[in-house]
Amino acid sequence: MSSEPVVSETRVLAIASHVVYGYVGNKMAAFVMQAMGCDVAALNTVQFSTQTQAIHLPSHSRVAACFVSVTDPIPGNHTGYKQFKGTKTSAEEISHLYTGLKQSYLTDFDVMLTGYAPSAEAIDAIGTIARDLKLRASTKAGSFFWVLDPVMGDQGELYVGEDVVAVYRNLLRDADLILPNQFEAELLSEIKITSLTTLQDALATFHKTYRIPHVIITSIQLSNSPSTISVIGSTARADFSPRSFKIDVPAIDCFFSGTGDMFAALTVVRLREAVKGANLSGIKSWISSDDVDAKDLPLAKAAEKVIGSMHAILVKTKEARDQELEGMSGPLGVMEMEEDSEKRLVLRRTKAAEVRVVRCLEDLRSPRTDWKAEALARDEDAEGQEVKKRREQVLEKGEA
Amino acid sequence: MSSEPVVSETRVLAIASHVVYGYVGNKMAAFVMQAMGCDVAALNTVQFSTQTQAIHLPSHSRVAACFVSVTDPIPGNHTGYKQFKGTKTSAEEISHLYTGLKQSYLTDFDVMLTGYAPSAEAIDAIGTIARDLKLRASTKAGSFFWVLDPVMGDQGELYVGEDVVAVYRNLLRDADLILPNQFEAELLSEIKITSLTTLQDALATFHKTYRIPHVIITSIQLSNSPSTISVIGSTARADFSPRSFKIDVPAIDCFFSGTGDMFAALTVVRLREAVKGANLSGIKSWISSDDVDAKDLPLAKAAEKVIGSMHAILVKTKEARDQELEGMSGPLGVMEMEEDSEKRLVLRRTKAAEVRVVRCLEDLRSPRTDWKAEALARDEDAEGQEVKKRREQVLEKGEA
Repeated sequence: MSSEPVVSETRVLAIASHVVYGYVGNKMAAFVMQAMGCDVAALNTVQFSTQTQAIHLPSHSRVAACFVSVTDPIPGNHTGYKQFKGTKTSAEEISHLYTGLKQSYLTDFDVMLTGYAPSAEAIDAIGTIARDLKLRASTKAGSFFWVLDPVMGDQGELYVGEDVVAVYRNLLRDADLILPNQFEAELLSEIKITSLTTLQDALATFHKTYRIPHVIITSIQLSNSPSTISVIGSTARADFSPRSFKIDVPAIDCFFSGTGDMFAALTVVRLREAVKGANLSGIKSWISSDDVDAKDLPLAKAAEKVIGSMHAILVKTKEARDQELEGMSGPLGVMEMEEDSEKRLVLRRTKAAEVRVVRCLEDLRSPRTDWKAEALARDEDAEGQEVKKRREQVLEKGEA
Repeated sequence: MSSEPVVSETRVLAIASHVVYGYVGNKMAAFVMQAMGCDVAALNTVQFSTQTQAIHLPSHSRVAACFVSVTDPIPGNHTGYKQFKGTKTSAEEISHLYTGLKQSYLTDFDVMLTGYAPSAEAIDAIGTIARDLKLRASTKAGSFFWVLDPVMGDQGELYVGEDVVAVYRNLLRDADLILPNQFEAELLSEIKITSLTTLQDALATFHKTYRIPHVIITSIQLSNSPSTISVIGSTARADFSPRSFKIDVPAIDCFFSGTGDMFAALTVVRLREAVKGANLSGIKSWISSDDVDAKDLPLAKAAEKVIGSMHAILVKTKEARDQELEGMSGPLGVMEMEEDSEKRLVLRRTKAAEVRVVRCLEDLRSPRTDWKAEALARDEDAEGQEVKKRREQVLEKGEA
């Protein structure tokens, strides 16, 4: 493993949740970015004892479906700590903390990464911070970049109040890159994604209507195979049309929390690295010129590395989890008998699946890039190719 | 740099302050321990925008004098962000967060590291958590270890209310290792440390009166040379007498914040590593048998590595700071003219001296150990040696 920091000096303001135990929100994102060399200012929007998300149970915490398939080899796929304690940071407190930074001239951030906030007001306060930082950086193109992870829900369930959706829509115009999952992309674009065409329509809406330069939809099921999921990305062309790519990744049969936050943090680092390599650091919103193909975009190159890191770490986490759960198959101890054993099992399973990011520094820093970006076709194109192929087959048969 | 985690699987509960910007408290300690492979549960006792400490200005935040001499080459040695915003976590909230962990059976910590808390009540709540964890681990010797950094003040100034001193004294009996600076050691032991004898008396008080197995006084000026500071450690013998060592380290001519927290976090990792190497993990409080010399204690071996990491990182931080401050010598920009330039300079100097821990992963993980522990003599012994030496010189002269 190289001992050098992965990125050049990078100052990030990360605004997201904090949990005492486990790895979601800023607890995940700050460590990932720091381990790769970023100087991270971490403004925590809540302090909770644990993450609280359970599959199918709407709740506060970000649990990206990325790299997850929802079948679980262990009977009963519910996970999550269910009970949690803690406090939310109010919109006013968030604004005050930022005022504290301003008073000490600590506003020279290169990147801002925002994730979960507990109310529409808090999200609005975060938007105000983003606009202020953008304004301060406006004299120097490319010197500030906002990565917005619009944490609202997953798999058709909202974690947040319905008023949050409109607040996020209002912020989109100021973001440089958004990282919705499929459900969030649908909420924001108001387009139900059921095909390549509707997917491209959603991307076009983000680029054209909301003027967002870069989009990654962190997880989407495109093929019929449940063993493959796709990451979709696009950087707008000069005419705001999508320039989209996809990366197919093998799904891992386990439910993890914090993967969305890991994805976002890795993306900050790898995009900054790729943009520097492409000499785009001084270009507004780091947008590649139109002659760059989708699969060669810095966003695509970054996503390949992000996925390489994530896949390796999640595979190791699952291995460790399976080992841990195997060790549980013996007779239950005294405490187990005292308690509802089903509840206890769910908690153990949740704990065992905490992403082992602190044990996987090399996978963060030196990922393999086995999964490559390819240009994303529209349904029409795909169908067109299919028709062409069939016609050729017919011709071949006729000739034979 | 080796890609393997530095320590075996280690679960740490870290209770200390959180700052959005900069590296003190848990912001420093959690990252350091995570980067070396620890799974860290971080319970934050405050969320402030920045650290607030200024030399000679008593305030909340931990700024260890460790590795610091207070002369500064730049005229006016005041540093610190002065203005800060944020909120304290109440004693009740701290207790609630711990209840949240208990409800999810997340109490299997190997180590607890506690630092700054904003009130006597909060410190008391932390003590209750420590006692509960100790009780839970009591059936398995060595399975839980509490590192208590009694953050109260430095250089004769209290950062905290006077009621805090008595609360800490009450907690000492439950700690396995305490990490006071000289001022805090004096407050807790009620012994003014002015000589090797009084230093040994303070150590004896911790071991004998408070039954604390291990003590490190993180910074003390023993020699007359301001360019050397000493780290003093001791592990009690079976009769609770001190078995003390010192490590002399070159002082770095710069004021850093968060060094106490870095020291504590590194000590957790390196002590755990050394204790494992010495096969003491299953021994209550990881105490070496009486036949182990002071300089060979796991505590001494750990401190050597801690100091190696810290010295390397602080030297690099100072180099970067000096470079940054040199760049400031040009004409002031528009913003500077608008503001009180002296205030602005102090803020810049403070920012420039933020410890560059995220850029120095290799120094954390693979330190040089140039500074070695040696047994600490009492004044009597030292004087005895001095008398003997002079007598020999007289004899030599007589013979010549």
